[in-house]
Amino acid sequence: MAQQHLDPTDPTAEVVTGDTLGAYLRAQATEFLRALRLHRETGGSTAAGAEESVDAARLLRRSARRISGSLHTFRPLLDADWSEEMRPELAWLSGTLGLEHAYETRLERLLLALHRLSGATVLPAQAVDVVAAGSRAAGAAPVPLKAALENTSGPANATPTAERGNLTVGAAKAGALLERQLTLARTRAHSTALQALGSSRFHAVADKVAVLASEVPLTPAAPTTGLRPLAAAAEERLTDAIAALPLVVAGNPYNAEALVHGLSPDPSPHPQDGPWHQVRLLLRLHRYAQEALHGGNSPVDVRLLAAGRALNRHRDASEAAAAAAQAARTPRIAPATAYALGVLHADQRHEVEAARFAFQQAWQKQTVSTP
Amino acid sequence: MAQQHLDPTDPTAEVVTGDTLGAYLRAQATEFLRALRLHRETGGSTAAGAEESVDAARLLRRSARRISGSLHTFRPLLDADWSEEMRPELAWLSGTLGLEHAYETRLERLLLALHRLSGATVLPAQAVDVVAAGSRAAGAAPVPLKAALENTSGPANATPTAERGNLTVGAAKAGALLERQLTLARTRAHSTALQALGSSRFHAVADKVAVLASEVPLTPAAPTTGLRPLAAAAEERLTDAIAALPLVVAGNPYNAEALVHGLSPDPSPHPQDGPWHQVRLLLRLHRYAQEALHGGNSPVDVRLLAAGRALNRHRDASEAAAAAAQAARTPRIAPATAYALGVLHADQRHEVEAARFAFQQAWQKQTVSTP
Repeated sequence: MAQQHLDPTDPTAEVVTGDTLGAYLRAQATEFLRALRLHRETGGSTAAGAEESVDAARLLRRSARRISGSLHTFRPLLDADWSEEMRPELAWLSGTLGLEHAYETRLERLLLALHRLSGATVLPAQAVDVVAAGSRAAGAAPVPLKAALENTSGPANATPTAERGNLTVGAAKAGALLERQLTLARTRAHSTALQALGSSRFHAVADKVAVLASEVPLTPAAPTTGLRPLAAAAEERLTDAIAALPLVVAGNPYNAEALVHGLSPDPSPHPQDGPWHQVRLLLRLHRYAQEALHGGNSPVDVRLLAAGRALNRHRDASEAAAAAAQAARTPRIAPATAYALGVLHADQRHEVEAARFAFQQAWQKQTVSTP
Repeated sequence: MAQQHLDPTDPTAEVVTGDTLGAYLRAQATEFLRALRLHRETGGSTAAGAEESVDAARLLRRSARRISGSLHTFRPLLDADWSEEMRPELAWLSGTLGLEHAYETRLERLLLALHRLSGATVLPAQAVDVVAAGSRAAGAAPVPLKAALENTSGPANATPTAERGNLTVGAAKAGALLERQLTLARTRAHSTALQALGSSRFHAVADKVAVLASEVPLTPAAPTTGLRPLAAAAEERLTDAIAALPLVVAGNPYNAEALVHGLSPDPSPHPQDGPWHQVRLLLRLHRYAQEALHGGNSPVDVRLLAAGRALNRHRDASEAAAAAAQAARTPRIAPATAYALGVLHADQRHEVEAARFAFQQAWQKQTVSTP
């Protein structure tokens, strides 16, 4: 990692070559193997080790995404057959391992929103604990979650308003319905992830990563080929995609764009979200490319971080809104439940719009402050 | 009206006294009588004269509000007994005459929102005509309204999606339900207004206004007492009320404040709207006071107009959101209908939030540009 001290903005800086990429990939492969060891030690399914197991899965995904991203951005420097075999396997792994956490944060986001929309302010201590321990992604004020819902197994036996932290019966039933549906999905995702980690497919990936930790299949020319042009191309793909976003609309608050198809009969009513999701992925690839350039030790770019956070929020709100709409299609729900889910859906679409505004603001700042 | 040319910002300007107020009140009373004549000529209930009748009612309310506002602001200059008798009668009249129009614009606003939320873009010519003729308050792009709903008498016989301008069945049923409820309310308001205009109570008011048109009951000191201190007090009440508004929050886009009680079990969940409604009334009183100062011919203050428009939008959206929530409490509605009403309610509460933002922006501009 001799290149750690390089300044990429310095035109007299040393040329960063495939050697640096090799070191970065070896480091990420080592991280992957460490996370795998952590996962095996904590068992992945015992109650005591549940939190460590979640962390292990998170670390596995973290390095899998970085290896996969580097394979994409720096493709010309790596053995083509090996890259083509490796990337879909890493994508499968990180997708499979990510689902459980995605369902968990989606449920948290929706329950927090239901409580916010109910104007609930009561804070039983145990509920705060649950929220404090569990809400990594929510970033909202703590409100009683499980406490309000813990005695509820379904809409049929919802408890009275007063017992559930001031949730209306409709909001309580909507929360119970979402909890049932998303907990079921999460449990399934957990089983699928455990199965995946025990599969021969996974062992084949792990073996390849173990080889990568000591030997990166660079092309013969790679050690003397510069990384910067490829990293610049990744950045250009990002800026091109951002230039195609409707940023003028997004920067105009309360433009009411995000909810425009809130009641559309179209089964996939929000194609408008697609370009934003795409920018989120391109921003991540750009960030990983910068990491590789700096030997895994790139300076923190607060503007990129803010833009990335806005796009994560956009993705989370978009998926939460879809989950609320999906839950409203459950047969035989009460009108009050459906009404609460409608309010919740619109609230999350409004969050989508807010996230686009936040991205526009963050990106504007970036454009202004880098002359 | 010798004072029409006075510049109120000129410190050397003539003192504006009760005489000017007298002229203003006589002029408003004359307008009232003219509107009443127009109403009687157009009949108020024949099909051909419906639009003129609406205009007559609007003009009656316009002058009633101005007389009532002046009685309030310039109370010390007017005969106390007469004022105290007159004001509640004018308030009753303008409230009674305003309801029909309020229900009409509320329905328009809600149907336009339903179409926007359905992503409907088809524009049958007759629907555009209906919208163009009827949507004074909406200010949104024309979309098919009546055309989409005209064959619907209730949720039970909703027509298929394709036939109703791409409205989903839920949105179509919600629209039909709202149309039924608000049309009924409007019809009742129309009858009540007609009854009121034929009542002896109204004739007593009209007689008093007829006297006012020639003889204003000023106090003996009024003709030599200045109006400016009383107008300044009205302005101060306005600025004090605005200073108490949460303008910092309102100026922060997507603050999610307006929907905070969207699912609250509280039967009147939006006390937060109250102070904004109050500012709307105080702004109107301030505007009428300025009119009186200028003998009914005050210069157009675009900033006050923008602020007033934002507060009208706030009031309209607040009441539309409440109507959607109210409709969702109709017994035996389908879950899809309730869901659409939930989305609609949240959409209108966002409009409330957007209106507060717009007011904050307009008011900010005012503060900055008047040193």
